[in-house]
Amino acid sequence: MDIEVTTIEKLDPAALARELLPQHVADNVVTLNQLDNDVAAAVLAQVPAERAVEILDQPELDFAPEIVSLLPRDQASRLLAAMSADRAADIFRWLDEPERSELLGRLDAETRAAIERLLVYPPNTAGSIMTTEFVSVPSTWTVAQTLEHIRHVERTRETVYAIYVLDPATRRLVQVVPLRRLISAESDASILSACRPHAPITVSPLTDREDVGRLFRKYDLLAVPVVDNVGHVLGIVTVDDAIDAMLAESNEDVQKFGGMEAIGEPYMQISFGEMIRKRAGWLCALFLSEMLTASAMQHFESELEKAIVLTLFIPLIMSSGGNSGSQATSLLIRSLALQEIKLSDWWRVALRELPTGIMLGAILGLIGILRITLWQNLGFFDYGPHWELVALTVGAALVGIVTFGSLAGSMLPFILQRLGFDPASASAPFVATLVDVTGLVIYFSVALAILSGTLL
Amino acid sequence: MDIEVTTIEKLDPAALARELLPQHVADNVVTLNQLDNDVAAAVLAQVPAERAVEILDQPELDFAPEIVSLLPRDQASRLLAAMSADRAADIFRWLDEPERSELLGRLDAETRAAIERLLVYPPNTAGSIMTTEFVSVPSTWTVAQTLEHIRHVERTRETVYAIYVLDPATRRLVQVVPLRRLISAESDASILSACRPHAPITVSPLTDREDVGRLFRKYDLLAVPVVDNVGHVLGIVTVDDAIDAMLAESNEDVQKFGGMEAIGEPYMQISFGEMIRKRAGWLCALFLSEMLTASAMQHFESELEKAIVLTLFIPLIMSSGGNSGSQATSLLIRSLALQEIKLSDWWRVALRELPTGIMLGAILGLIGILRITLWQNLGFFDYGPHWELVALTVGAALVGIVTFGSLAGSMLPFILQRLGFDPASASAPFVATLVDVTGLVIYFSVALAILSGTLL
Repeated sequence: MDIEVTTIEKLDPAALARELLPQHVADNVVTLNQLDNDVAAAVLAQVPAERAVEILDQPELDFAPEIVSLLPRDQASRLLAAMSADRAADIFRWLDEPERSELLGRLDAETRAAIERLLVYPPNTAGSIMTTEFVSVPSTWTVAQTLEHIRHVERTRETVYAIYVLDPATRRLVQVVPLRRLISAESDASILSACRPHAPITVSPLTDREDVGRLFRKYDLLAVPVVDNVGHVLGIVTVDDAIDAMLAESNEDVQKFGGMEAIGEPYMQISFGEMIRKRAGWLCALFLSEMLTASAMQHFESELEKAIVLTLFIPLIMSSGGNSGSQATSLLIRSLALQEIKLSDWWRVALRELPTGIMLGAILGLIGILRITLWQNLGFFDYGPHWELVALTVGAALVGIVTFGSLAGSMLPFILQRLGFDPASASAPFVATLVDVTGLVIYFSVALAILSGTLL
Repeated sequence: MDIEVTTIEKLDPAALARELLPQHVADNVVTLNQLDNDVAAAVLAQVPAERAVEILDQPELDFAPEIVSLLPRDQASRLLAAMSADRAADIFRWLDEPERSELLGRLDAETRAAIERLLVYPPNTAGSIMTTEFVSVPSTWTVAQTLEHIRHVERTRETVYAIYVLDPATRRLVQVVPLRRLISAESDASILSACRPHAPITVSPLTDREDVGRLFRKYDLLAVPVVDNVGHVLGIVTVDDAIDAMLAESNEDVQKFGGMEAIGEPYMQISFGEMIRKRAGWLCALFLSEMLTASAMQHFESELEKAIVLTLFIPLIMSSGGNSGSQATSLLIRSLALQEIKLSDWWRVALRELPTGIMLGAILGLIGILRITLWQNLGFFDYGPHWELVALTVGAALVGIVTFGSLAGSMLPFILQRLGFDPASASAPFVATLVDVTGLVIYFSVALAILSGTLL
């Protein structure tokens, strides 16, 4: 498939453009994403304008700004004017000068104003993902009038499944009518007769896209109006954009949980420098914190010299603490993100994690004791004359460290949220680092208590 | 708010039921979730049937099966019959006997058959999240006939925004018409005139819900028909259920990435035994693998005895390998899940991770060397007469280990996917364990190369 496409485009962009037509527009995007930008632009230039607009309207088109800047200026501006305003604004956001100003200047005043209004909202807000192409009617209209209006504007609106009813005098939002109710309502009744009994659900242009996603999920919405503080509808966020926002957020959560800054772009599209920047920051911060383990070890150096056998289990014991912490953190991050658990529930969680940690630690501790006993008695390794005490030290330390790991891992997201940070910043490496230093101290303290007088 | 609710419900469920009415049904669910199950059932029994059905239809209602089993049998069966079939099936899936058979027996034959059909599909498939309440019309109908039909059935269908056009003879799916196109089409034209030019997008009842979510995202769907292998429509999956499925999947990804089995329920609702089971399995597997670190250390015991100073940096160096691996894994898991990257791209990724790992390792290595130099010269700690060589060992080992961590962390999701596992099983603790053992070997090999003849 890749090869075929490569051959065809080298021969004739027009032929490839014709091949795109019978396919679904989403599949056209997949094909164009595989081409070089200049070839993709050449193909797009040959596609009928209506389809070209549909293609550019797909957020999945990877290099839309680059492709638009490679098109002839007049064609590019015609396509941008016909696109949905939110996607056009997205493209302008990434266009370089002088293309940006030139293309913006070629738009008609109304379209330019709509796009410029969208460009002022910060990324990741409702304002930045809303579209201004929605259906609104005055509350004095009848059902039949509204349906007639929808018939005329259907092609130019991103959705017609929600109709926004405005006060004719103030133009403030009065109600939202779903199209399905409108269809089954009486023709000559007032549009208000098809409304739901409760107040419409709205967001402000600065609402975080994560909260917008939560509203869609809670209320099973197909669109939500974005209103300013006097109640004027600035635009709407549709469910497809809300899904993209939700998935982008959960992506960021996974990346943060992996211990790095969130990367907003696909893996293959970030530059080397950007990749290093996004990863080196956290890696260095973790490295500097983890240096405390070296300090802790230096503190216990005389014990280490006396009982080198203790060092053998350091990686094993520390990693168990980190692993149990990482489990607890991943559980709690999502519960907090989905609001299954509130900040004030922290003590309930702590009361669950305490016995869980003790139990998990006891299981690992028993396995550890078993391993040392087996290796000693089967002659695989000699842990010295006090091997039973060494085994006991490892077992007891595991109970302590896994319990501490579970508690620390579960409380960290609460603490971060309480301090106003994103709980998803409580990454697995962050928790592991936190638990490593304390884990070493627990291990050597247990060792001192059990082995002092014999090995130490 | 919590306190107020508790007081009211103790006084009078009927009063609380009246308070629910002016609110949005999603907010009713929030209120009911805060009550004990028996109180919630008492309140629900007082709510008008139409609203009670809407409440039970919300997947966010936490204890729906428990609440239904606490209602009077005849009321429960009336509500279940009026609910959407997919949600009713969900409730039946979790009902205990004898309630389950009793309530199923009280349903009319048609509803019972619809629910039993849904119950046969395994969880997490399109069949298990589809609804059978959709609009279908024969392809011989006109636009006006179809609209008239929708007007009559609107109240009993989960969505009317997609109309499924069937062959009148075979009843196979011919096309899908969006309601918006129907509204703007000519009244007396054939329904087929409002169709899109390409074949309808469909799924099979056994399609994984993750793949269903991907289709919604790619094609910006509001609903997708579930068809059997001869093309009969069995049901449809609507976008609200697809969103729930997508978020459940990304939740599971985070939990797996945290190093545990995915938990399908909210944190507070899983039993202690279940919690231990879901967490102990992976924890024990990781513990057993991590035991290789003890074996590796035992192998290098004589070196350790000669140069105890090397042990001081073991946790620091190992954790850096794990952290860089965890970053790479989190990046790649999501890229694979969103299909930004294909399996065959593994070598491209390896070619990016190699220089990235070397660069990140070099940064950490420099910090490590700096730290040892500073501590030595400021008199904080004495790393011995060969401290420069120790610093060099730590620095060089970090380059090797971080590079190995980045490569291993990025390749692991590919290997798992190639072997037919979920790439999301490549958890942060899994990668850390993998890197720990190799990291120790790299560290001691570098030490042998640099320090042999002096310390070793």
